[in-house]
Amino acid sequence: MRSWKLLLEYDGGRYSGWQEQKNARTVAGELRKAAEEFLRAEVEIGGAGRTDAGVHALGQVAHLRAALSRKPPAEMLRRELNERLPADIAVLEAAEVSGRFHARHDALSRTYLYRISQRKRAFEKRYVWWVKAPLDVRAMAAAAQTLPGRHDFRCFCDADPAGAERSTVVVVESARIEMEDELILFRIEASHFLWKMVRRITGALVKLGLGEIATSDFETLLAGRAEPRLNVAAWTAPSSGLFLESVRYPGEPFPRRTASQLFPLPR
Amino acid sequence: MRSWKLLLEYDGGRYSGWQEQKNARTVAGELRKAAEEFLRAEVEIGGAGRTDAGVHALGQVAHLRAALSRKPPAEMLRRELNERLPADIAVLEAAEVSGRFHARHDALSRTYLYRISQRKRAFEKRYVWWVKAPLDVRAMAAAAQTLPGRHDFRCFCDADPAGAERSTVVVVESARIEMEDELILFRIEASHFLWKMVRRITGALVKLGLGEIATSDFETLLAGRAEPRLNVAAWTAPSSGLFLESVRYPGEPFPRRTASQLFPLPR
Repeated sequence: MRSWKLLLEYDGGRYSGWQEQKNARTVAGELRKAAEEFLRAEVEIGGAGRTDAGVHALGQVAHLRAALSRKPPAEMLRRELNERLPADIAVLEAAEVSGRFHARHDALSRTYLYRISQRKRAFEKRYVWWVKAPLDVRAMAAAAQTLPGRHDFRCFCDADPAGAERSTVVVVESARIEMEDELILFRIEASHFLWKMVRRITGALVKLGLGEIATSDFETLLAGRAEPRLNVAAWTAPSSGLFLESVRYPGEPFPRRTASQLFPLPR
Repeated sequence: MRSWKLLLEYDGGRYSGWQEQKNARTVAGELRKAAEEFLRAEVEIGGAGRTDAGVHALGQVAHLRAALSRKPPAEMLRRELNERLPADIAVLEAAEVSGRFHARHDALSRTYLYRISQRKRAFEKRYVWWVKAPLDVRAMAAAAQTLPGRHDFRCFCDADPAGAERSTVVVVESARIEMEDELILFRIEASHFLWKMVRRITGALVKLGLGEIATSDFETLLAGRAEPRLNVAAWTAPSSGLFLESVRYPGEPFPRRTASQLFPLPR
């Protein structure tokens, strides 16, 4: 049995999410096809984050296992997978690891990045949420600063489609809003996320930025108190602006690569 | 009569180039539709560079004229055009100018940027030429340094489809190759360019980088001496990697904006 850890980036626009599904094109499904074709063996694949349909990744991490007697070098595996994967999925790094490594269970935290643009640009529609009306970014940033810590995020999640009863309490390690040129970037790090959680928090932050809800409304939601007039589900931010940016593991103190390294578009 | 100067960026992937054509979708055609719908008048449009099918722009400049009695503010024009233009065309700036301003005739020079990538990345296929084999970037950079000055570029151009007999002598103001992370960037500035000139020079530079032609072969071509074995037409670099980066006008000493301002993708 051979095990590898893979660092992946993908444009999620054409995929029904990361997780394999019958009759749908998924990122893990494409990875399986490429890996089984090259290794000529059945493979086991697991990803650190189950990105939804249309959500992108700058630094998804996956494990890949196969019962093999030969031992293809990791760099060859990376190259051969890239040759076989579609243009919108790339393996950035591959390393052989212990068979005990599990991309999801071993991860300490995930960081998601949400990109909001206030100005039309020709190359980015697929990678932002374009909000035309003026936003009070200061109010949004202040609200984002209240996210770290232990909170009941029941107002910011959707029922798990798998029907699992899970706690809606999540410990957020960090959350912040920054301006970068004309972009509003929202980053949030937590050990795990509930379904649609980042997109619903983002949607509520934008409602706050638009002045359509008050800071006290955001506090009410973060306290886990649902109110009919606060229809967070209807505010869910579009998947186009969401990126799984990085995954942190034990013994990797500074795993996050700057996104200009990760996403080298024209400059 | 009102005249405006527009700074435009576009993803050329879906268009048959800048110049208006019957029965083809072009960037200028989309701009005309948007402008005539907003201004409710016929307009005259001219661009500084006639980018080919599939070629992008980070800083195309155009003039727009219309016989109007009212005077919509330039910022309103910019916003209203952006509302009506497709997502892959954006007006970055608009300014009212003298009716004598002509985007093509008044331009002192154009700068084109060609982007070559040696590594597969998930978000950039439409915006690079992906060359998998190793390249001798140093040899390419040395050859690029021989381009500035007055040369007969007959070996690096295609016959003008309009059938015009034009001189193939061009004065190149600057040309250089730089590495930026994993990208090889080739920039070239000249008062004007011949048809397919940048893509054919780039194709020859890549042949040199691959070791398939010698530096002396590049010199032969730059001296205007065609040789059957140097089939430059077959080496033409794909349009996906080419960008009209900026246009320089009198009285604008530093018109080039850094492309990170122009192309703010995830970082």
